[in-house]
Amino acid sequence: MPDIRPIFFIIGLLLVILSAGMGVPALADIVTGHANWRVFAGAAGACLFIGVTLILTMRTEAARMGVRQAFLLTTVSWLVIALFGALPFALADLELSYTDAVFEAMSGITTTGATVIVGLDRAPPGILIWRAILQWLGGIGIIVMAVSVLPMLRVGGMQLFRMESSEKTEKALPRVAQVVAIISIIYVGLTMACALAYWLAGMRGFDAVAHAMTTVATGGFSTADASVGHFNSPAIEWIAVAFMLSGSLPFVLYIQAVRGNIMPLLRDSQVHTFFGIAGTAILLLASWRIMAADEAIGPAIRQVTFNLVSVMTGTGYATSDFSLWGEFALTVFFFAMFVGGCAGSTTCGLKVFRLQVLYATTTAQIGKLLQPHGVFVPHFNRKPIPESVSESVLSFFFLYVVSFGALSVGLGATGLDFLTAVSGAATAIANVGPGLGDVIGPAGTFASLPDPAKWLLSFGMLLGRLELFTVLILLTPAFWRN
Amino acid sequence: MPDIRPIFFIIGLLLVILSAGMGVPALADIVTGHANWRVFAGAAGACLFIGVTLILTMRTEAARMGVRQAFLLTTVSWLVIALFGALPFALADLELSYTDAVFEAMSGITTTGATVIVGLDRAPPGILIWRAILQWLGGIGIIVMAVSVLPMLRVGGMQLFRMESSEKTEKALPRVAQVVAIISIIYVGLTMACALAYWLAGMRGFDAVAHAMTTVATGGFSTADASVGHFNSPAIEWIAVAFMLSGSLPFVLYIQAVRGNIMPLLRDSQVHTFFGIAGTAILLLASWRIMAADEAIGPAIRQVTFNLVSVMTGTGYATSDFSLWGEFALTVFFFAMFVGGCAGSTTCGLKVFRLQVLYATTTAQIGKLLQPHGVFVPHFNRKPIPESVSESVLSFFFLYVVSFGALSVGLGATGLDFLTAVSGAATAIANVGPGLGDVIGPAGTFASLPDPAKWLLSFGMLLGRLELFTVLILLTPAFWRN
Repeated sequence: MPDIRPIFFIIGLLLVILSAGMGVPALADIVTGHANWRVFAGAAGACLFIGVTLILTMRTEAARMGVRQAFLLTTVSWLVIALFGALPFALADLELSYTDAVFEAMSGITTTGATVIVGLDRAPPGILIWRAILQWLGGIGIIVMAVSVLPMLRVGGMQLFRMESSEKTEKALPRVAQVVAIISIIYVGLTMACALAYWLAGMRGFDAVAHAMTTVATGGFSTADASVGHFNSPAIEWIAVAFMLSGSLPFVLYIQAVRGNIMPLLRDSQVHTFFGIAGTAILLLASWRIMAADEAIGPAIRQVTFNLVSVMTGTGYATSDFSLWGEFALTVFFFAMFVGGCAGSTTCGLKVFRLQVLYATTTAQIGKLLQPHGVFVPHFNRKPIPESVSESVLSFFFLYVVSFGALSVGLGATGLDFLTAVSGAATAIANVGPGLGDVIGPAGTFASLPDPAKWLLSFGMLLGRLELFTVLILLTPAFWRN
Repeated sequence: MPDIRPIFFIIGLLLVILSAGMGVPALADIVTGHANWRVFAGAAGACLFIGVTLILTMRTEAARMGVRQAFLLTTVSWLVIALFGALPFALADLELSYTDAVFEAMSGITTTGATVIVGLDRAPPGILIWRAILQWLGGIGIIVMAVSVLPMLRVGGMQLFRMESSEKTEKALPRVAQVVAIISIIYVGLTMACALAYWLAGMRGFDAVAHAMTTVATGGFSTADASVGHFNSPAIEWIAVAFMLSGSLPFVLYIQAVRGNIMPLLRDSQVHTFFGIAGTAILLLASWRIMAADEAIGPAIRQVTFNLVSVMTGTGYATSDFSLWGEFALTVFFFAMFVGGCAGSTTCGLKVFRLQVLYATTTAQIGKLLQPHGVFVPHFNRKPIPESVSESVLSFFFLYVVSFGALSVGLGATGLDFLTAVSGAATAIANVGPGLGDVIGPAGTFASLPDPAKWLLSFGMLLGRLELFTVLILLTPAFWRN
C-alpha cells in the first residue's frame, strides 16, 4: 500500500486551481447578467474548502514520489477533477443528473467532447466557457503528463520519449519543469492565435475564445448544438483544421521550432506518418464522395478534410452528419477514430508512433520468417527500437483492443444497439467525441443513454486518456501488495 | 525467386487426390439416380488431367524444400484446391457464377461454412456431400499443417508447438509423418463416431455422414437451409456440441490419450482456458436470455451452448437466428467469433494459446511497470515463453486486427452496410461461417453480395485459415528477391 498522503496533498493543490478556474465562468455570467454565476461561486467554494483542508492535513516532510504513487496520483487527479468539475453542471439549471454532469466533465477533462447537453445555443455563457476551460486544462494536462510522468512510468512504449538524463529523477526534474514551462507558453500562444483567427473569420469574440480552447486541445466542445457547422463558414473550418492539426503534433518539437530550428519538426517520422495517414484517408473519402455521391470537388474536399481530421485527431467537431455519408464512410470513420495524433500532443487514440512501432516490429517479424537466422531490428525515427519498447507497445495494443471489446460488450448489456455500442466504446476510449449512428452520431447527443452506459463511457474516457496501463494497474492486486 | 518446380509437382499430386475425392459425390449421385454425376465426372477428369500433367512435367531430382517454397506451397495448394474444387459448383445446375463457386469452395476448404447456395434441401446429394468432403479435407489438412509446416515456419508463435528434435528437417520428417498418420486415424475415428451418434439420434444415414464430416472439421456446412435447426432435436444438438468441441482441441494430445495416457489432455492449460472462455460466455449469455428475454432455463442453456460453441469454434451451424436475440447477444457473438479453438485443431480464429500468450505477456508488462528492474517471465503451459514467441504472437495479433480493419473497409467500399461489413470481415478471417445482421446472419446467405465482396471474403478466408503471415509474406518484395 503506497503512502497516499503526498497524493492527497497534490490533489488539494489541484482543487484550489480548479476553484480558481471556476472564477472565469462566474465572471462571464456576471458580465452578461446571468444568475448562473452563483452556481460557480458555490462550486468554487466547495473546491476551495476541500482543497485547503487536504493541503493542511496531508502535508508531509520530504515526500519522495515512488512509481506507485505516480500511478495513483495520475489516475486519482483526473478522477477528482472530473467529479468536482461536474458540480457546476449538476447545480446549474440544465436538467442534468449528477451522472450526466460527471459524464460531461469527464468528457471535458479528457478532451473527448461527447456531450449530454441539449440546447447549447441557449445555455448560460458560464457553462459554455467552463466546458471549454475543462478541455483546455485537460489538453495541457495530458501534454505535461506525456512529457514528465508517462515516459518515466514506461507506459505503452512512452519510454521512447524519455528526455536524456531523465533516468534519474533528481537531475531530470528541473529540466522537465523548464520544458513544461515553455510548452505551456506555446500552448497559450497557439490558443490565442487560434482565437484571433476565428475572430477575424467572423466569430463573436466569446465563441472565438471558447472554440480556440477546444480546438487546440483537440477537445471538440462547441458553443452550438450544430457544432462548427453552426457557423457555416469555409474559412472557420479551414482554421479549425489547421489548429486541430497543430494540437496533434509533438509539442516537444515546437520548443526547437520557436527557437528557430524548425528541422526536427519537419524531419520527424511521426509527423510524416501522421500526415500520411490523414492524407490517405482524406484522398480515399473525398474520391468516394466525388464519385459515388456526386459531390462537387471543392465542398467534398473541405467537408471530408474537416470531418476526418476532427475524428482522427479525436477532436469531435462536426460540420455535417457524416453518419449519412453512407456505409463506406461510416466504416472508414470507425477505424479512423482509433488512430489519434502524435505522442506528446493533446490527442488520444492509439497514437501514430505506436502504429509505427507496430508496423516496424511486424515487418521485422516477416523478415525473420524468411531468414530465421537473419538479424532484423525495427527502427523508429531512424533509431533502433529496444525490444522492451516493442513489447510494451504490442501489449498496449492488445490491451487497447481488449478494453474496446469489453467496453462494447458492457455497453451492449445496457441495451444499446450494436453500432451505438461499438462506436460508443471506440469514441470513449479514443477520446473522440461523437460516435456513429442515429443516437450518438454527430447529429445526436449522449443524453438519452441509460445511466450505466454513461458511467461505463466515463470510465472508458479515463482509461483511454491515461493510456490504459495507468488506470488498469490500480486494479491489479500486485499494486496494493507490499 | 524460389524454385517452383517441386511446388507444382506436389500441387499435381493434390489435384489427383482431389479428382479421386470427386468420385464419392459422383457415386452418390449415381446411386440416387441424379444426372448431376456427370458434373463430377467432368470436373474429376479435368483435375486428373492437369494433375498428371504437372506430375510428369515438374518432377525434379532431390527436391529439398526451403522456407520460401514451404510458404509458397502452402498458399498455392489451398488456392488451387479452392479453384478446382469450385468446378462442380460452377458446372452443376445451381445457378452459381464461377465467383459464387469459388466462394463456396473456399468456404469449404477453409472450414468456414459461409454459403451462397439457397435451396440446400433440394440440392443433388452429390453437391451436398462434396461440400462436406471439402470441409473434411480442409479440417485434416489444417491439422497436418499445424503439426508439420507452421511450427517450422514459425508462423505467429506456432513454434511453441514444434516437436522435439524437429529443428532439423531430416530427422523430424519420419516422426512428423508418424504423428500425421496417427492423427489422421483419430480424425477418421472421431468422424465415424460422430456419424454414428447422429444416426442413432435420428438423422438419415446420408445427413449423419455429411454432418459428421463438417462437425469434426468445425466447418459448418449443413444439408439443410435451416442448418442443424432443421432437425429440431436436442439430442442432435448436444452431439454436435460434443464433436465441435472435440474438433477444437489439440489433436496432438489425442495421440497420448488413445495410447491410454489421458493426463496431458486433461492437464493442458490451453484446453482449460478454452473451456473457461466458452463456459464464461455461455453463462453470461444464458443468464441474459433467462433474465432479459424470460426464456425457460433448459432451452436457454441448450440454445446458447449450441450457438455459442458453434460461433466460437468457427463451425457456424445455427439452430435459431441469434441475430434476433438482441443487441447484447450480437455484441458477444461478434467478439466470440475471433476466439477460435486450440492450436493444432480444425478451428480458426486467433486461437486460445495466442490469447494466453498475449495475456501472460501483458501481465508481465504490468509487473515491469511496478518494478522496472524486476524480472517477469511470461509462462505458457507451465513453461517460460521465449521472447521471440511473445513478439511473434503480438505481431500476429496486430496483423489480425489490421487485416480485419482493411477487409471491413474494403467490404464497406463494395456497398455493404456497417454490420454486414464488419461481421463479414470477422466471419471470413476467423472462418466462422455466418455473419451478423439480416443479410449474412444465420438466417441469411452470402448469395446477394456483390462479386467484389465475394472475392474479398474468399481472400479473407484464405488469409485467416493460413494464419495471415503465410499468405501476406508472398506479397512482400523481399520474398521474391534473391
